[in-house]
Amino acid sequence: MRIVHTSDWHLGKIVNEFSMLDDQRFILKQMIDFLVQQKAELLVIAGDLYDRSIPPADAVSLLDEVFYRITVEAGIPIIAVSGNHDSPQRLNFASRIYERSGLYVEGIYNKTIRKITLQDEFGNIHFYCLPYIEPAIVRADFPDEKIHSYDDAFRTLIHHNLTEIDLTERNVLVTHGFFSYLKNPDAVERSDSEISIGGSDLIDASYVDMFDYVALGHLHRQQKAGRDNIRYSGSPLKYSIQESTSQKSITTIEMREKGELSIKKYGLTPRRDMRVLLGSFEQLSNAANVQGNREDYVYAQLTDDSLIPCAMDKLRTVYPNIMGMELIGRKHEFDASVSAAAAVKNKTPQELFEEFYSAVKGEEITDSRRTMASKLFSKLQGGYDDETN
Amino acid sequence: MRIVHTSDWHLGKIVNEFSMLDDQRFILKQMIDFLVQQKAELLVIAGDLYDRSIPPADAVSLLDEVFYRITVEAGIPIIAVSGNHDSPQRLNFASRIYERSGLYVEGIYNKTIRKITLQDEFGNIHFYCLPYIEPAIVRADFPDEKIHSYDDAFRTLIHHNLTEIDLTERNVLVTHGFFSYLKNPDAVERSDSEISIGGSDLIDASYVDMFDYVALGHLHRQQKAGRDNIRYSGSPLKYSIQESTSQKSITTIEMREKGELSIKKYGLTPRRDMRVLLGSFEQLSNAANVQGNREDYVYAQLTDDSLIPCAMDKLRTVYPNIMGMELIGRKHEFDASVSAAAAVKNKTPQELFEEFYSAVKGEEITDSRRTMASKLFSKLQGGYDDETN
Repeated sequence: MRIVHTSDWHLGKIVNEFSMLDDQRFILKQMIDFLVQQKAELLVIAGDLYDRSIPPADAVSLLDEVFYRITVEAGIPIIAVSGNHDSPQRLNFASRIYERSGLYVEGIYNKTIRKITLQDEFGNIHFYCLPYIEPAIVRADFPDEKIHSYDDAFRTLIHHNLTEIDLTERNVLVTHGFFSYLKNPDAVERSDSEISIGGSDLIDASYVDMFDYVALGHLHRQQKAGRDNIRYSGSPLKYSIQESTSQKSITTIEMREKGELSIKKYGLTPRRDMRVLLGSFEQLSNAANVQGNREDYVYAQLTDDSLIPCAMDKLRTVYPNIMGMELIGRKHEFDASVSAAAAVKNKTPQELFEEFYSAVKGEEITDSRRTMASKLFSKLQGGYDDETN
Repeated sequence: MRIVHTSDWHLGKIVNEFSMLDDQRFILKQMIDFLVQQKAELLVIAGDLYDRSIPPADAVSLLDEVFYRITVEAGIPIIAVSGNHDSPQRLNFASRIYERSGLYVEGIYNKTIRKITLQDEFGNIHFYCLPYIEPAIVRADFPDEKIHSYDDAFRTLIHHNLTEIDLTERNVLVTHGFFSYLKNPDAVERSDSEISIGGSDLIDASYVDMFDYVALGHLHRQQKAGRDNIRYSGSPLKYSIQESTSQKSITTIEMREKGELSIKKYGLTPRRDMRVLLGSFEQLSNAANVQGNREDYVYAQLTDDSLIPCAMDKLRTVYPNIMGMELIGRKHEFDASVSAAAAVKNKTPQELFEEFYSAVKGEEITDSRRTMASKLFSKLQGGYDDETN
């Protein structure tokens, strides 16, 4: 069976005020074309189909369209589970009705691990489907077990539900969460935004060693979680600037007889890349220096050592979809002045302005400018008094 | 074909801060039992399945459960259109996929009128399905037509889409809106909350004369719209106190050969009725006088002629689900004083209090009380001055 594994579509996501919907439509069309060309026999989506529990109506329409084209038009079944960004109930709507049409959506955790059995020329493949789980919810279902962590919750579910797994047949787990081998958790790379405080969401990947393949979602970077056949497909698009250097892809698994499978990645090409531009303002603001698509989502790291007025607006004339900017040449000095901000309350506007002037210009304010500022502040404060009286 | 017609479920509705979800679950179970017992062959839902475009997750789960039990467990197909309270895109999700399972949801208006053809022993029955429409949206699709009103929009759609209707076969229209014969629009009864300003949402029922049956939704009172076979099924529950006197029901249509059909109503019994209690506070607050279910949603009309302190709280000990109260014994006087409220700005607190005192007590304030009030107001105003200085 030719299985394609993807996850973390995050339909409806907005990144730095840019809606990703057109990018998502573009990349999903590419994915559908690939499924059809490669004669895929199953698409597995390991959670986070939507970016939030109440997705915008346009995102709902897009998922409707994509599901229709894959299952009905292309005749390729889909198995999907909900992720932590999805609403279990909303994603689950009508799922028991439409699964006759080859669309299996396991939206709601319900104490068990749903098993869906499909066939190919080598026999059965059992797909175990587990939506994203929270320890507190699993704990309520198993009051006799000590469940404090995600690891406890997952282990309990595996222990109670997989007693009759047939290890002579092929078994695949589809789920959403943070899996790694506890003996070496740092082998799995997460971006800053993916790390939860204390790392308590970590689940030991050794619990799933008995599966022939584990299709994971949650982390946006494609990677194996310890073993080659316990994998994150990663998201189909870059959704934060931390992901700018990772190549996005979908994962294909060619499953033959038990124990025989080959895994490949197929790179996806976005409508607009998301990337970091490094250089001086002079270099980056010169349209002649543009490399790649100027409509990409870019993030400028300016090497300049002083602030440039209206830098974003000027860069936007070259890169219309610029998402952000930072001045890395002066970063340490600014950090220092930020840490001094705690003392702000005890300073007059005049003092604050003089400090700001020095920080930006790198020199003391001149006497004439000090006087000019002083007059301005007096006038402004007079203005405020007029309003409050 | 034995068709059951319902509409206006408004799942997730909250009436006077009471969630109707348990009542809805109860009444829909009753409806499902009826469908099974009567061996219904089709359920038609004429819009407003949800109460709002983003329904609560519990309401989504309830609709999921009801659809599953009817279509999959009972094997009875469903045809539904969206109403003005539904989100077209959200209701439509996956509908093209699950319609293989006998669930037809026409959520999104798309310039046409969808025709679904089902068969019985007498031949074809064509179900024309039109979601709730807005004139502005239809106008955009037909720029050459003059579309100002709902009537214009509907007439245009009928004109463009029903040119090939086969009048030798049976045809049913399922839609959501306000239909009546324009020559006698008042024949259709609407509650205050259902009347839009100017009545511009009225559609002439004579446009749909060619149909063998028209299954309408929008008005909550079951009734015919001019002709016997152009009907509102009404909502399955009372959703406002204005509906307290109407008996809720579903409508059954037994369709035989062309021109032969019989229409019946089947009364529904709610978990809790919604009704008006008329009487003095003394009568109504006495538990011994309770008639019917004290857990009903009641609205007390007190015949007393003076205000009763904490009347709602006291009545709630007898009727735990009391939704509201009004003092009808003094209604006219209060109306008069309310109409005088426009002059409030020109009166002192003391004057306002004296008027209120007279209105409540039915007599002039005494001198000693006037003095007491005067001192209190002086003190209070002094207090305010302290705060503002």
